[in-house]
Amino acid sequence: MTDSAGPVRVGLIGSGWIGRFHGESLARRIPETDLVAVADPAPGAAERVAGELGARYAYTDAADLIADPDVEAVVIASPARFHTDLVVAAAAAGKAIFVEKPMALTIADADRAIAAAAAAGVPLQVGFNRRFATGFAAARQVIDEGGIGTPQLLRSLTRDPGGFDPAAVKPGTIFLETLIHDFDTLRWFNPGADVLDVYAVGDALVHPEFAGRGLLDTAVVTIRFDNGAIAVAEANFSAAYGYDVRGEVFGSAGMVTAGDVHANEMRHYHAGGASGPTTRLNIDLFRDAYTQELADFAANVRGAGRPVPTGEDARAALAIALACIRSVDTGARVALSAVTA
Amino acid sequence: MTDSAGPVRVGLIGSGWIGRFHGESLARRIPETDLVAVADPAPGAAERVAGELGARYAYTDAADLIADPDVEAVVIASPARFHTDLVVAAAAAGKAIFVEKPMALTIADADRAIAAAAAAGVPLQVGFNRRFATGFAAARQVIDEGGIGTPQLLRSLTRDPGGFDPAAVKPGTIFLETLIHDFDTLRWFNPGADVLDVYAVGDALVHPEFAGRGLLDTAVVTIRFDNGAIAVAEANFSAAYGYDVRGEVFGSAGMVTAGDVHANEMRHYHAGGASGPTTRLNIDLFRDAYTQELADFAANVRGAGRPVPTGEDARAALAIALACIRSVDTGARVALSAVTA
Amino acid sequence: MTDSAGPVRVGLIGSGWIGRFHGESLARRIPETDLVAVADPAPGAAERVAGELGARYAYTDAADLIADPDVEAVVIASPARFHTDLVVAAAAAGKAIFVEKPMALTIADADRAIAAAAAAGVPLQVGFNRRFATGFAAARQVIDEGGIGTPQLLRSLTRDPGGFDPAAVKPGTIFLETLIHDFDTLRWFNPGADVLDVYAVGDALVHPEFAGRGLLDTAVVTIRFDNGAIAVAEANFSAAYGYDVRGEVFGSAGMVTAGDVHANEMRHYHAGGASGPTTRLNIDLFRDAYTQELADFAANVRGAGRPVPTGEDARAALAIALACIRSVDTGARVALSAVTA
Amino acid sequence: MTDSAGPVRVGLIGSGWIGRFHGESLARRIPETDLVAVADPAPGAAERVAGELGARYAYTDAADLIADPDVEAVVIASPARFHTDLVVAAAAAGKAIFVEKPMALTIADADRAIAAAAAAGVPLQVGFNRRFATGFAAARQVIDEGGIGTPQLLRSLTRDPGGFDPAAVKPGTIFLETLIHDFDTLRWFNPGADVLDVYAVGDALVHPEFAGRGLLDTAVVTIRFDNGAIAVAEANFSAAYGYDVRGEVFGSAGMVTAGDVHANEMRHYHAGGASGPTTRLNIDLFRDAYTQELADFAANVRGAGRPVPTGEDARAALAIALACIRSVDTGARVALSAVTA
Repeated sequence: MTDSAGPVRVGLIGSGWIGRFHGESLARRIPETDLVAVADPAPGAAERVAGELGARYAYTDAADLIADPDVEAVVIASPARFHTDLVVAAAAAGKAIFVEKPMALTIADADRAIAAAAAAGVPLQVGFNRRFATGFAAARQVIDEGGIGTPQLLRSLTRDPGGFDPAAVKPGTIFLETLIHDFDTLRWFNPGADVLDVYAVGDALVHPEFAGRGLLDTAVVTIRFDNGAIAVAEANFSAAYGYDVRGEVFGSAGMVTAGDVHANEMRHYHAGGASGPTTRLNIDLFRDAYTQELADFAANVRGAGRPVPTGEDARAALAIALACIRSVDTGARVALSAVTA
Repeated sequence: MTDSAGPVRVGLIGSGWIGRFHGESLARRIPETDLVAVADPAPGAAERVAGELGARYAYTDAADLIADPDVEAVVIASPARFHTDLVVAAAAAGKAIFVEKPMALTIADADRAIAAAAAAGVPLQVGFNRRFATGFAAARQVIDEGGIGTPQLLRSLTRDPGGFDPAAVKPGTIFLETLIHDFDTLRWFNPGADVLDVYAVGDALVHPEFAGRGLLDTAVVTIRFDNGAIAVAEANFSAAYGYDVRGEVFGSAGMVTAGDVHANEMRHYHAGGASGPTTRLNIDLFRDAYTQELADFAANVRGAGRPVPTGEDARAALAIALACIRSVDTGARVALSAVTA
Repeated sequence: MTDSAGPVRVGLIGSGWIGRFHGESLARRIPETDLVAVADPAPGAAERVAGELGARYAYTDAADLIADPDVEAVVIASPARFHTDLVVAAAAAGKAIFVEKPMALTIADADRAIAAAAAAGVPLQVGFNRRFATGFAAARQVIDEGGIGTPQLLRSLTRDPGGFDPAAVKPGTIFLETLIHDFDTLRWFNPGADVLDVYAVGDALVHPEFAGRGLLDTAVVTIRFDNGAIAVAEANFSAAYGYDVRGEVFGSAGMVTAGDVHANEMRHYHAGGASGPTTRLNIDLFRDAYTQELADFAANVRGAGRPVPTGEDARAALAIALACIRSVDTGARVALSAVTA
Repeated sequence: MTDSAGPVRVGLIGSGWIGRFHGESLARRIPETDLVAVADPAPGAAERVAGELGARYAYTDAADLIADPDVEAVVIASPARFHTDLVVAAAAAGKAIFVEKPMALTIADADRAIAAAAAAGVPLQVGFNRRFATGFAAARQVIDEGGIGTPQLLRSLTRDPGGFDPAAVKPGTIFLETLIHDFDTLRWFNPGADVLDVYAVGDALVHPEFAGRGLLDTAVVTIRFDNGAIAVAEANFSAAYGYDVRGEVFGSAGMVTAGDVHANEMRHYHAGGASGPTTRLNIDLFRDAYTQELADFAANVRGAGRPVPTGEDARAALAIALACIRSVDTGARVALSAVTA
């Protein structure tokens, strides 16, 4: 932990849509952070975002941002394949680290990232934002208070509003980049339990013409935990009605649900029935959660506690994703130990 | 109370839509009743309904039905203006009486009906069916259990699905035939309290071209109770989205709500948002309540207890309606004592 | 089809809770049926129910009921292991047949029942009552109208309110008697598609002390259809909050949901938050559906059309259940062809 | 309009809870504003808030803040009785003005404020924040699109979570400070219509022991508009379940509703039923609306358009409140012209 005073001086790596939103949060929404630098390899991108958000420095090379002595923490929002190396480099430079999911794409990389942060003694937090969404957090609190007893059946789902480029989606994407959120949610909703094995099925139902290239735009996963609980994770890349993220945990003493497709509480009653608006964009659903996770990160950088979700959480969710990929390939149940050993 | 055994042998007076539905309930839905006779002055109407429902006798003159020794109880579903005389005649003949609302159109008639039933010692129940709707009954139970503390603010509303003939509606209809339900509900939701005064406004908003003839198709009433509670009743004759009956009671310790415009729990999520079907017909909303009130009546005829809602309940709701009519005419608050004294 | 006039004269076989409820419906709730006979092997059971419901005949041997010339249709509500033989006997006697689920416990028996009804030319309807629940039927209508496009992800779940005797539950029960409802619902919600394979997991989570005897009180099933759709069925025998049956279908153009744990629409707002009552009993959730399926049956006996769900529907749901049992045993995906060939 | 570039330089007058929250929004949540000065007569208050929020100047005398050439706009969040004089002074100094509700406590003062802003040509916006709440704004949009046809019945209610000091509440407070929000909402939900008259009842139901001092903690108002629409506004100062603000507009073609007492979408199902958390604080319900109204103000200061709600809106809502006070006193309907003439 750094013991500096004042707002945490953060450097942002990556200025795509989520990077830019994080930049806005760091610069404007979170009093406890300052956005001091932006790095993006695309010509002019870092300058533009830095200028708009009042950051003093703009870099095309993330290494320069990491080396900047004015930067005490980094938010890594680059493409996923660069995450691990950036974590390792930032740790080596002694920077506190917030890294978007997935932190790594292999178990070896996950271990490398965790080890680097541990060796450097720097905070490492992973961007599983759903833990910071009000409804999901309230559900977890009910679980912690014993309100549902022992979890027995869990569900987590992600349905994106569509508009993706099927040619750009790799076979593992739905597990490594989308369902990894659900895997983290399911683990978080079943505290203390470990995953035994998974069974995954997937298909190209939105774009069947890409099925031959291995596209999976729809997937369903069954997960068994060592406390007996059985979980289902489900994803689809094209929901006609908007962005749909929900969770449900059923236990020996009750059930909690979280997530809602409604954009707000307005309801319209007319000759065709009763209707209400649905959430169209990821950012509309998780605006506050994205902000809150960074506010928590800043508090932890200033010594409030150990950041969560941790690198170990990222590794555990990754292991589920990797087991799913193997399960789809083999059509069989895959023990988690088969991908982590 | 009659001490006969077996199903209660009921004669139905009036075979309009609610009469016919009551007839079906008596004949088919309620094991504790038999429909033995039907009376309706319209040529052939009683025969037709009696034939379809297996009743043995059909009369054009209600007096003949009342005199029929096989009939031990009557359900009066004739037009409202005949209710009181039929109650009085049935009481004189020693029949148990279920009468549709309004039991009477004047306080004198209400008193006459109550006195007749009392003198004859026959059960008298009034058709305020909302008391028997599951959600409304559950709300009242919460109130009885102290779940909202002392009632302070109440609301009851009725919105019909439209299609009425404005030329057939009299100025007092909205209060005497529609809002009288809400007046009973509000009294029932505020147990033990008496109404002090009312202020009513009304207008012809659905059919403004009939405003000159005194049509009121929209009305709002403010009611003050002697325990301080303030209630609002509201009605409109043409809801585009169907049949809407709701209640709300706010008190010192909480709130209960009852009523729902949704026809069922199905929800459809699509590019236009989230939607669900609404209830289009009165009968769809209150089918079970209409049946339950008659089942209760039968049980009370067989000695289970004193029927409710009582004649006194009908008189109290009527008094509110009459005060409303005067309030609309004068534009001023009207004390209940002004119409009951 | 019989071309008799008047109400369908039905004999009831089995007077357990569902048999008795069906008997009440036949005798009292459905004008188009008469309950003429009851059979139950338990001493006095048939007499008691027949007496209460006004049926003229009571038998201890179902064969006698089937042979009764006054009986033109039978409702089979005996224990599941007798269903097939009773269907075959009733068919041989030329009776129209309504049989509770499961119609058969083996594919051979299912084929035998279907063949017997076909050979005799009698109507055969199976008691998958959810198809007749208002919300589920409305969901199916949306699907039929194209409101969700092509189904891609489906869910159906059953959670019983608990109180079962774990010693009395056999390993296959959760699939053959409980989830068989969900299997039918999922097939019905994905019209025209066939099941390819299943993967099922199950455990004794409610009563872990019975796990060694093969008890499954919790199960999750993944089903792949030949149109690409992926379905999840889920069951648990002990929901603390009551009886929970829900369905969800997500497709290329939207989603429909059906089922609701709320007992009614009343809501109570208090210092602890907002709350509402939940449904505690199966019969509270499906009262109208149980009645409607028999009303439909009667209409079909009188020639309205071919009864559904059909024997083939029962066979198809059974095949899924049998594949699930094998999948739990082997831990592997099981093709439907493996249990039907 | 000022044609300066950069964020709007705002001075905050008053640092009570809403003033402080507005200060945070100006300093941190809204990129288009800078908080440059704070004024508060309480010793040390302005310094403390200015220090925490990074404002450069702190004043005990609002006149000094208004005279500060670095301040180009003021947000007036002082006690209500000072609002008008501050508006007039700020206008005279050429500052853009955002004033909390109520802008004035008399019609004369309202006219004076409006005239001062008009004479100075400065923007004047009033803090009716509900217009900026997502659900309320969506409801208004439906109205504007014709989704409910012509408004006929409206409802707006405010129930505070309690904890007020009855000795500090004046007789008019419930109308001038609380229901004035609802009056604005009702006018805004019935665009283009003018209020004809009101009838108001009120009582001390939360603290009956203060009734003798004229306390009103509960009130119900009926409002007639010149397009025939009838509205009800309702308030209570102590809701056991939290903060409850809702609106409903029924018209010739449908209904819209806005507002929800639920704090978030989490639901908990347990042996006692189904429950969810309710909103406990004003600020939890309107956080985004409070921010959005100031963001809109800043945009209008920079020339985006004429600010709304306007001074005329404030005057119109005030007139309703004043008529209500007279109506409570007289027990009679009061024409709006009686208080505005």
